[in-house]
Amino acid sequence: MTSPSKILATCRVALADRSYDVRIGQGLLGDAASYFDLPRSRQALIVTNTTVGPLYGAALKAALAGRHDTLHYLELPDGEAYKTSETLGLIYDALLRPACDRKTLIYALGGGVVGDVAGYAAATYMRGVPFVQIPTTLLAQVDSSVGGKTAINHPLGKNMIGAFYQPLRVLCDLDALKTLAPRELSAGLAEVIKYGPIADMAFLAWLEEHMDALVARDPAALAYAVERSCAIKADVVGQDERESALRAILNFGHTFGHAIEAGLGYGQWLHGEAVGCGMIMAAHLSQRLGLIDAGLVDRLTRLCQRAGLPVTLSPALGLTPERMVELMQVDKKTEAGRLNFVLVDGHKARVQAVDADPVLDVIRTCQAQAA
Amino acid sequence: MTSPSKILATCRVALADRSYDVRIGQGLLGDAASYFDLPRSRQALIVTNTTVGPLYGAALKAALAGRHDTLHYLELPDGEAYKTSETLGLIYDALLRPACDRKTLIYALGGGVVGDVAGYAAATYMRGVPFVQIPTTLLAQVDSSVGGKTAINHPLGKNMIGAFYQPLRVLCDLDALKTLAPRELSAGLAEVIKYGPIADMAFLAWLEEHMDALVARDPAALAYAVERSCAIKADVVGQDERESALRAILNFGHTFGHAIEAGLGYGQWLHGEAVGCGMIMAAHLSQRLGLIDAGLVDRLTRLCQRAGLPVTLSPALGLTPERMVELMQVDKKTEAGRLNFVLVDGHKARVQAVDADPVLDVIRTCQAQAA
Repeated sequence: MTSPSKILATCRVALADRSYDVRIGQGLLGDAASYFDLPRSRQALIVTNTTVGPLYGAALKAALAGRHDTLHYLELPDGEAYKTSETLGLIYDALLRPACDRKTLIYALGGGVVGDVAGYAAATYMRGVPFVQIPTTLLAQVDSSVGGKTAINHPLGKNMIGAFYQPLRVLCDLDALKTLAPRELSAGLAEVIKYGPIADMAFLAWLEEHMDALVARDPAALAYAVERSCAIKADVVGQDERESALRAILNFGHTFGHAIEAGLGYGQWLHGEAVGCGMIMAAHLSQRLGLIDAGLVDRLTRLCQRAGLPVTLSPALGLTPERMVELMQVDKKTEAGRLNFVLVDGHKARVQAVDADPVLDVIRTCQAQAA
Repeated sequence: MTSPSKILATCRVALADRSYDVRIGQGLLGDAASYFDLPRSRQALIVTNTTVGPLYGAALKAALAGRHDTLHYLELPDGEAYKTSETLGLIYDALLRPACDRKTLIYALGGGVVGDVAGYAAATYMRGVPFVQIPTTLLAQVDSSVGGKTAINHPLGKNMIGAFYQPLRVLCDLDALKTLAPRELSAGLAEVIKYGPIADMAFLAWLEEHMDALVARDPAALAYAVERSCAIKADVVGQDERESALRAILNFGHTFGHAIEAGLGYGQWLHGEAVGCGMIMAAHLSQRLGLIDAGLVDRLTRLCQRAGLPVTLSPALGLTPERMVELMQVDKKTEAGRLNFVLVDGHKARVQAVDADPVLDVIRTCQAQAA
């Protein structure tokens, strides 16, 4: 069974012998044509979760019919709280019990958590098996499925255990966004908005014009937002795969965001929601350090609000500024004890070490605005 | 404190931006000069075990004095039985509790297990931190520390979870071999002997001349054996880092060997002992398939015997040929259900799929010889 599909755009992630395409279009995941030139391993494994599996698992299985002698299927529990070594163990078991060999192809069907944990399993099972990303959330389509960052969380920190490991292909099926919960759509828009201030102010202006269309899931608007986001990400990753320098700008809002996620407890706020609020804090910090004026902070704040994202952190949530700074100390972006932030200047982004004091001030300001 | 040291040989593992040196010599691990051009990260971690730590931990710490603001130290339990995800968790905890950042340098001081598990932790902590191999067993010096294979075992199979991840340097300190238990020396000699039939028949002849000197730990003989082994391995790895083809010849004796290890229970036989016996089985299989004559099988058998290695598998150990073949089915080297073996022809090695029947026959023969 194959539904008609349309490729609207293709972004190439150029990484020598690890290069691959991000295909963006409609009906891609259920179309056999999306897979025809991928390896036909004897065994293969679909990794998905209990939310996405019932919606798209059957379509993917149908599109893959006949490609593999055995097609295994694994549904993980849904949510950031399950991005753990225990969940990883479920994937290893699903591979080892039927003696999957090192040519086994893994299909990661789902959002950021499925992609990260299935990608990490692919990176480490028998020292690496091939995998394909089929992101079904906006956040995964515009960010986490592209670029080869895979990871699981550790009780002591987010994404602490992981690998850089590139997929063979990324299939962004825009049709999958139709079933996305509104909160999930908003969370994805946070990562879309991010690309404006760090790389493309014209895209920021486009987002200001089309935010209502995006929230209303206008297909043409979503297609352009996903395409532009993937193009920027592919370009940055192609220049700096392992985040020696440039790639770090993709973490705009993430130092604050990760501290919010960890501080509130994984799963309280979605990753994208924490990043949205974190971006506003990072914009305030950029302003405080004289890099931008209040105008850009206001633009970003309004845009995030229109996207349905939280832009303040209510003190009632019980996360103090001091605790947030403490959590930042164990963040991967921290080096030699210095807190590193992605700051914007209205043209491009930079990574800069910042003292704790202005950081605490900015968090306090955002909390005061919420009160 | 710095003891005088002497570099006797250096082998370059040529892997573009991941290239590094294997230094072979005396007094290397306790000499500050061995480390002076390595990164001086703020924090660093020595990973060793309860056998090696008390012998060489203090010398390494002294040689590293002043290089790092904080030098952490972790002793793992000793033995293949501890090459597990639980042990890996101990290393992650030792890195995360003091908030080690992604520039933290890991020193792996010990045998193959320490190198494999500490290397795997380095590969995956924050998606990769730099590490240095300081192998203290003959097996680790001639084989496991060179080439970037890192892994842990899974209850369902050996080295099933791992990564290709190269160290910054390998320091083979021949002085460390003085304290090696005789069984450990023999186990290392198995991997040394391996290089003869797969790559260098002249080296095999040299080993026949010098086996007594090696067993007596003659420094000059050991130095040459380590140097020649590392040179062959560096050459093979430089041509095929991720084992797409050629590198597989380094697994001579390992399909049988891994099945022996798993079948008897990890830790019953040392890895090198199982490989020694596995090599003899692989030689018999090569002969059975008409690739070599009985003369070479006899030469390898005598050489392994002189090295103190088991060359037969007593039926009294309770491991049946059928069970061994079953275990081979889940081996990483198995692809599409076909058992793959490294076979030798008296000049070079090849990887070949073999039916179960001749494999069962060969194991039965080796068991009959033991009875």
